[in-house]
Amino acid sequence: MTRTAAALIIGDEVLSGKVHDTNSHDLARYLRALGIELSRIITVPDRVEVIAAELNALRAKVDLVFTSGGIGPTHDDVTIDAIALALGRETVRHPALERSLREHLEERCTDDHLRMAMIVDGTELDFGPEGAAPWPVLILGSIFILPGIPQLFRAQLELLRPRVSGSERAFVVESAFCAADEGRLKPFIDAVVSAFEDVAVGSYPRFRDGDDGYNVRITFDGRDPARVREARERFVASLPAAWLLSTEP
Amino acid sequence: MTRTAAALIIGDEVLSGKVHDTNSHDLARYLRALGIELSRIITVPDRVEVIAAELNALRAKVDLVFTSGGIGPTHDDVTIDAIALALGRETVRHPALERSLREHLEERCTDDHLRMAMIVDGTELDFGPEGAAPWPVLILGSIFILPGIPQLFRAQLELLRPRVSGSERAFVVESAFCAADEGRLKPFIDAVVSAFEDVAVGSYPRFRDGDDGYNVRITFDGRDPARVREARERFVASLPAAWLLSTEP
Repeated sequence: MTRTAAALIIGDEVLSGKVHDTNSHDLARYLRALGIELSRIITVPDRVEVIAAELNALRAKVDLVFTSGGIGPTHDDVTIDAIALALGRETVRHPALERSLREHLEERCTDDHLRMAMIVDGTELDFGPEGAAPWPVLILGSIFILPGIPQLFRAQLELLRPRVSGSERAFVVESAFCAADEGRLKPFIDAVVSAFEDVAVGSYPRFRDGDDGYNVRITFDGRDPARVREARERFVASLPAAWLLSTEP
Repeated sequence: MTRTAAALIIGDEVLSGKVHDTNSHDLARYLRALGIELSRIITVPDRVEVIAAELNALRAKVDLVFTSGGIGPTHDDVTIDAIALALGRETVRHPALERSLREHLEERCTDDHLRMAMIVDGTELDFGPEGAAPWPVLILGSIFILPGIPQLFRAQLELLRPRVSGSERAFVVESAFCAADEGRLKPFIDAVVSAFEDVAVGSYPRFRDGDDGYNVRITFDGRDPARVREARERFVASLPAAWLLSTEP
């Protein structure tokens, strides 16, 4: 079984350019190591109807959806309401979350804080293997509801690792950095693409620091390390020697 | 008239975590300064049918679509074919692009290079106000087709500025950095949200370097600098003095 996933990044702060989202990149690397294919990243504004519509569209396309952001107590935190709308469910106050907030905040706890104890009816709470997480991941079937703060997002991905891990083999990647332009490399790339159907080949021109021109990174991706290595070696051996700069970044 | 826009980021390299996309963030900041609302960022794999479907979905939702990536000559460059599919048009080789490639590459120019001269029938080429750009932006009605290499993406956004600029007023933002948590800030935030319907208020908790806890950045966004400033000042004046850390990042 090879599962697919999507990231739903919720936040006006990303769309308005105030914040450069890093959560989708962290999720991409995390899923990669687990052998799960990230097939969509969608960033949406803090609007209930938009989030709900995009979430339902994603659920129809992929096996797992990871949301980021919009689960705090303020007016712009609408993710829980949006998921409730998408799934046609009610929101309810969760007793364990309410207790956790009251214990943590003591006399400072207000009704506004308690908005963070609202969940979509039926949500499962995952406090991690040791139950030590300060705040659980909220899980609704195939939807993982994570906070937008990057440190918390990463921490919750780690907490989820045992649950998300499956039987997929991790993806591995090998690279070849070439001095020739893509047009000249293309026949050599096409040859390896044809010969290795189980290896995904990518070609990425990039500027080099301290150089007038740019080079091209050719990547070889797959689940079988031996095949990936073989594809890269076959490609490298086929090239005019002067075109190969390195196989390390 | 207030236009909306979307970014369509095309690239397996982003979804596989090999590259952290910066183009969507650059586009967000660029549109912000022009007063255009970025309402969606969608990252898709290098697959013709997927790109075409997402492009058509975006075209139905926003006024302008900016694509990034997939316009080189290699097998994983499928953006032109995808746009042709989405619009139900043919691809054709453009004489000016072919001439440009042949002049630049001279005897090194191959048929593989000339794949970069393929455009969707009806595409307009914009070489910029002085015609000095080495490579034009490809424009198809409301679709702006940009390269994925960040330096080229930014250069082409600049080239497009006169064309994309409209009558919208630029967005401006002001901030207040607060020491209290969101739950305690919420009543003060809600008051300013109610009083300033023309100002979008955002609340963003964040970890602080070298500190045990985190603070909250409250942002005030709008097109009228005086109203945005007034909203921030009203909010700041309402707070217990010890809660305000700064109005500068």
